[in-house]
Amino acid sequence: MDIQKLIKPKSIAVVGVTDKPGFGRGAAQGALNSRIVEHAYFVHPKKTELFGKKCYPNISSLPEVPECVVLATNCHTIPGLLEEAGAFGVKAAVIYASGFSEENTEEGIALEEQVKEIARKYDMCICGPNCMGMLNNVDKINLWGGHTHWDLEDDAHGIAIIAQSGFICAEILNTDFFNISYEISSGNGNIVTLEEFLEFVVEDEHVSVVALYLEGVRDSARFLSALKKAAQMRKPVVILKSGRSVRGAISAASHTGSMAGSNKSYMSIFEKYGVIVAETLEEFMCLAQTLSVLNGNFPTKKEVAVISFSGGESTLSADIAEEVGVELAEISQETKDKLKQYIPAYASAKNPLDATTTLFHEDEKTVGVLKSFNDDPAVGLITVGVNVKKDDDLTTSDMCKSIAHAKELGVTKPVVAIPSLEGYRYRGSRRILEDAGVPLMSSMGTSFTALKKLLDFADYDYKEHNLESCVPKDHEGAESYALSEYDSKEEMKQYGVPVPAQAIARSVDEIREAVKGMKYPLALKINSSEILHKTEAGGVKLHIQNEEEAAAAYNEIMENVARTSPGKKTDGILVQEMAPSGVEIIIGVTNDKQFGPMLLVGLGGIYVEVFKDAALYPVPLNKGEAMNMLKSLKSYKLLTGYRGSKPCDLDALTDMMVKISDYAYAHKDEIKEMDLNPVFVYPQGEGVCAVDALIVKYK
Amino acid sequence: MDIQKLIKPKSIAVVGVTDKPGFGRGAAQGALNSRIVEHAYFVHPKKTELFGKKCYPNISSLPEVPECVVLATNCHTIPGLLEEAGAFGVKAAVIYASGFSEENTEEGIALEEQVKEIARKYDMCICGPNCMGMLNNVDKINLWGGHTHWDLEDDAHGIAIIAQSGFICAEILNTDFFNISYEISSGNGNIVTLEEFLEFVVEDEHVSVVALYLEGVRDSARFLSALKKAAQMRKPVVILKSGRSVRGAISAASHTGSMAGSNKSYMSIFEKYGVIVAETLEEFMCLAQTLSVLNGNFPTKKEVAVISFSGGESTLSADIAEEVGVELAEISQETKDKLKQYIPAYASAKNPLDATTTLFHEDEKTVGVLKSFNDDPAVGLITVGVNVKKDDDLTTSDMCKSIAHAKELGVTKPVVAIPSLEGYRYRGSRRILEDAGVPLMSSMGTSFTALKKLLDFADYDYKEHNLESCVPKDHEGAESYALSEYDSKEEMKQYGVPVPAQAIARSVDEIREAVKGMKYPLALKINSSEILHKTEAGGVKLHIQNEEEAAAAYNEIMENVARTSPGKKTDGILVQEMAPSGVEIIIGVTNDKQFGPMLLVGLGGIYVEVFKDAALYPVPLNKGEAMNMLKSLKSYKLLTGYRGSKPCDLDALTDMMVKISDYAYAHKDEIKEMDLNPVFVYPQGEGVCAVDALIVKYK
Repeated sequence: MDIQKLIKPKSIAVVGVTDKPGFGRGAAQGALNSRIVEHAYFVHPKKTELFGKKCYPNISSLPEVPECVVLATNCHTIPGLLEEAGAFGVKAAVIYASGFSEENTEEGIALEEQVKEIARKYDMCICGPNCMGMLNNVDKINLWGGHTHWDLEDDAHGIAIIAQSGFICAEILNTDFFNISYEISSGNGNIVTLEEFLEFVVEDEHVSVVALYLEGVRDSARFLSALKKAAQMRKPVVILKSGRSVRGAISAASHTGSMAGSNKSYMSIFEKYGVIVAETLEEFMCLAQTLSVLNGNFPTKKEVAVISFSGGESTLSADIAEEVGVELAEISQETKDKLKQYIPAYASAKNPLDATTTLFHEDEKTVGVLKSFNDDPAVGLITVGVNVKKDDDLTTSDMCKSIAHAKELGVTKPVVAIPSLEGYRYRGSRRILEDAGVPLMSSMGTSFTALKKLLDFADYDYKEHNLESCVPKDHEGAESYALSEYDSKEEMKQYGVPVPAQAIARSVDEIREAVKGMKYPLALKINSSEILHKTEAGGVKLHIQNEEEAAAAYNEIMENVARTSPGKKTDGILVQEMAPSGVEIIIGVTNDKQFGPMLLVGLGGIYVEVFKDAALYPVPLNKGEAMNMLKSLKSYKLLTGYRGSKPCDLDALTDMMVKISDYAYAHKDEIKEMDLNPVFVYPQGEGVCAVDALIVKYK
Repeated sequence: MDIQKLIKPKSIAVVGVTDKPGFGRGAAQGALNSRIVEHAYFVHPKKTELFGKKCYPNISSLPEVPECVVLATNCHTIPGLLEEAGAFGVKAAVIYASGFSEENTEEGIALEEQVKEIARKYDMCICGPNCMGMLNNVDKINLWGGHTHWDLEDDAHGIAIIAQSGFICAEILNTDFFNISYEISSGNGNIVTLEEFLEFVVEDEHVSVVALYLEGVRDSARFLSALKKAAQMRKPVVILKSGRSVRGAISAASHTGSMAGSNKSYMSIFEKYGVIVAETLEEFMCLAQTLSVLNGNFPTKKEVAVISFSGGESTLSADIAEEVGVELAEISQETKDKLKQYIPAYASAKNPLDATTTLFHEDEKTVGVLKSFNDDPAVGLITVGVNVKKDDDLTTSDMCKSIAHAKELGVTKPVVAIPSLEGYRYRGSRRILEDAGVPLMSSMGTSFTALKKLLDFADYDYKEHNLESCVPKDHEGAESYALSEYDSKEEMKQYGVPVPAQAIARSVDEIREAVKGMKYPLALKINSSEILHKTEAGGVKLHIQNEEEAAAAYNEIMENVARTSPGKKTDGILVQEMAPSGVEIIIGVTNDKQFGPMLLVGLGGIYVEVFKDAALYPVPLNKGEAMNMLKSLKSYKLLTGYRGSKPCDLDALTDMMVKISDYAYAHKDEIKEMDLNPVFVYPQGEGVCAVDALIVKYK
């Protein structure tokens, strides 16, 4: 299967050309507006000419074997046409029609199976069915089924869009704001999958940023491998994940039939692989466009300089920047002195800068201000308030030219232009900026939110993360069982997780033996997976101070249990040291069916329960990642010494988290979930202790 | 002073007309494009004609006395021109020039004082200086100093914009997206103040929504009175408050010289008066435009129905709605059955609805879907995904027509159109919707955020709030002093706040007398405002069980203090009952210099300190408002019975909050701050107790 023939065909044929609105007309017009128009053919059963181009009655009668056919006909005709194309030697196809597996009917599923079978038989690469087609703006090949602002002469590109929604693609192409390299409406994604398209665009040199509208992943191993590759190449991947909410997930499931999976797992995977996560379509495209124009010129510092030409704009920028977490650079006195040369006496030389409208049409001053900020080592990136209008406008185009001029004169740090308000952005002015590597972002709120994510991306270093994938085998329908507390802790101990000294005693003699060498006080508990409420059953004795008390407690527990829980299976008594109490932590692991074990950490009790203050991160993780999890907690300051208490032993805690992760990684195909609750964390140098543990495995 | 002559002049003169870019040209073109053009005059010292209109050499030589002069000349000419105008009988003026008090120079301040003096002398109403002018789109009078998409024929209006930033005004007028009634760039705001403009637009019948870009308020009493009026009229006020952040506040202060004040106080005032708070310029205008088109047709239920024509759009809408807190309506089976008549068999009848593209160009079906949702009693408002493009587009305009048609056919509930992506919105299609009362909102993220605020506004009832203003007298530079714990609690007691029984004893006899009738255990504390660390000084004795112990403790404390704190002033010993401990609450009051006492409440200890979980609200407040404060806390669930503990006595707690508020209201001109910490809240029916109190007053 050769994906090049689908995305970069040297010849194409459109089947189902028509002059009526719809896919047939869209695809025909696309073909006519492609650079390969000389090798683009139309097929129509009756007409001999359409749009001034000859029509052939069928695929087999075409004068050459096209590398790709575009089928703009209804679902029932598809198997026949595809068979004809395959037999003729065609190696790729685009199928727009719906009526396949996405309808979740027996008929639709069967029809898609038929298409899949033909594709396999002839080794064909197929986009769709149930898609809007594809656009290759690098080679100027337009296989799009709808309308687009297509300009054969305009060669600005950089973004690869892959979307599990034709609508999302269509809305993007209905503006002319974005520099697209490839746009792929992946449709049902059962033949060429989303993950294969992703691999292609990650590796393509004409793609500086990958923008993925994602409802759900099918082949998670392949997905993760593409993300890892992108991380290693430092090629930004922006994902707009939908189905995040309860209703959204239901909606996504009924849309492309994707398994929505746990949104929290997706988000933690994205965090690990440095994926930039957008929340809305406008932010998604703002990020994509910005990254494509920056084209690798990422900031090396996260502090920003903000230039505006009005007090209102300057104040609002400062507010929004602070609110979304973009930090403004502390500029030096030297920089302030330089700025004073270019701004009027009544303006103040500071960051954010209100340079005032006196800089309009003043190239030298505008360049001077930009250079002053650029040369300050505290500045990582510069924003400029630029309000590109609907039409040409001298103030704006002069401003754009001055910014471009500044880039020419040695402003090497990334510069982004930020309009205050949404609206149409005149391409003429915009291109002056873009050609100079300066992206025109979206309106201010969206822009600063996007900027924060861009700065985080620039700060991401894949080497600091453990990017091993940990996809487990399929456990669909598998039953599970819980290990006893003793066994769970023994497994933990083998991985170096500190647990209290413990033993199982099945007689008074055994308990007398077991307590030798143990540190008092001790706790005794009935060892039984069938008695759930051990305290209520009289199965627990705490604060045992010596051997005699231990022996007496043994007998008492056995008598209690015999009375309160007749017939319940027991296996002796667990005796263990009682750990002194420390700061209470909860550590848990759940095994995500797509992405494998996810480690959860949070402070015990009300912090996790009332404030939902917990962090989740994919296994395997290293010590730095464990530390980042802790730092992301709102209650983190309770670990670093609060109100005079000593700082906690975070070194021991992160060590423990890594060991639990190692265990989960090694047992990814077996474990269902784990729960270490509570874990006590002691002051610096005094370690940690997992007081209780529960491991649940698949049978 | 007659503000009508400024905003609705019957005749105007522009002084400083020119054909070069700038205010003089902007104002001249505005005058020529005004409905009062017959009574618009140009003044130029030398030229006899400009833009085909006669120029007069000075104001005094004009053929009629204009109601308003527009001064487009530099700051130094202003006093002379204004004096001439005033003497001639002119009653209003617009002054664009900067160079006045905003520069914070002696010269600028003096110049503005001069202008103020002339205005007083001739009773003139003045907009500016340092402004961009005004636009009256109701009467079609254009006194704007810059460019605007002005259309004499287009009479869509509704929004009044007042902005303490010319730039903000200019950016809004540089789009043609919004239905403006009045737009006022209030400039330095020292002559006609922001608050006076606000009063005018709140009362004007052509204004359905007030949109205020605010850096700071000067006349807070007048400001609050305008907000109260708007609340009572149910006229929405949208405020974009800038200077919210640390840097933003500095930036705002150096911009118009407004006192930024405490942002938290502003936000709590806005909450009380039902003001809608926008965070960004795009959200601000999205809210203003939406409310102006709805024109009072507010939802009576907060649950929403979401109609889209694509799976992707539907899923994203559901995600974003949930994330911003917009609730989707649970529609009935009857509604689902109705919907099925209009959507294809493979689509599912649910909310959010993916109606599929089969509804494009299908008026009857589109109307049917809208009516089905409208007739479901669970639905309060309907959103429709409508993507108005840059140009005319049949799919979109047909969609707009069908929505308008549905409104005609009895869809009475508010309907809003939500595009997925930002961009230019073709006015032709947009007006079809707007004429039917259907606003076209901003891109999806901004729209749903705005929608949440709109729904909250619709739910706001001014009758549930105590809207008395509580502006204190000026305490600038005043010194303050703290009341003793005993006196603080006595003042609280007089207002009905439960405090432990307490007394001051100045001898052993007095203590024996004081403890009679008190409930043991008791606490004794040295009563001194000079001994700060009472425990360390040996000045505290707790858990006193009887009279003898009390007498002994008295002597012991006196001896300790004499030894540890020689020379410190003391006034006997405070003896009080020890309250049993309950859930720990902190209640505080700070006296905002603009808006008066603000009550703060939060759960004690780490909740306020680590999680910053506290609520702030203006005094005076009623019981309902007190309850809303508690409900807004993240830790609220700790008050309602958590993990088996009994629910707290919230009735007693809110009673206490109201009593503290009453005290602060009555003492607004005296108190600086108050601190009740801790307050113990007991289980339902068992009351509350302020264990400690501190009141600080101005001297």
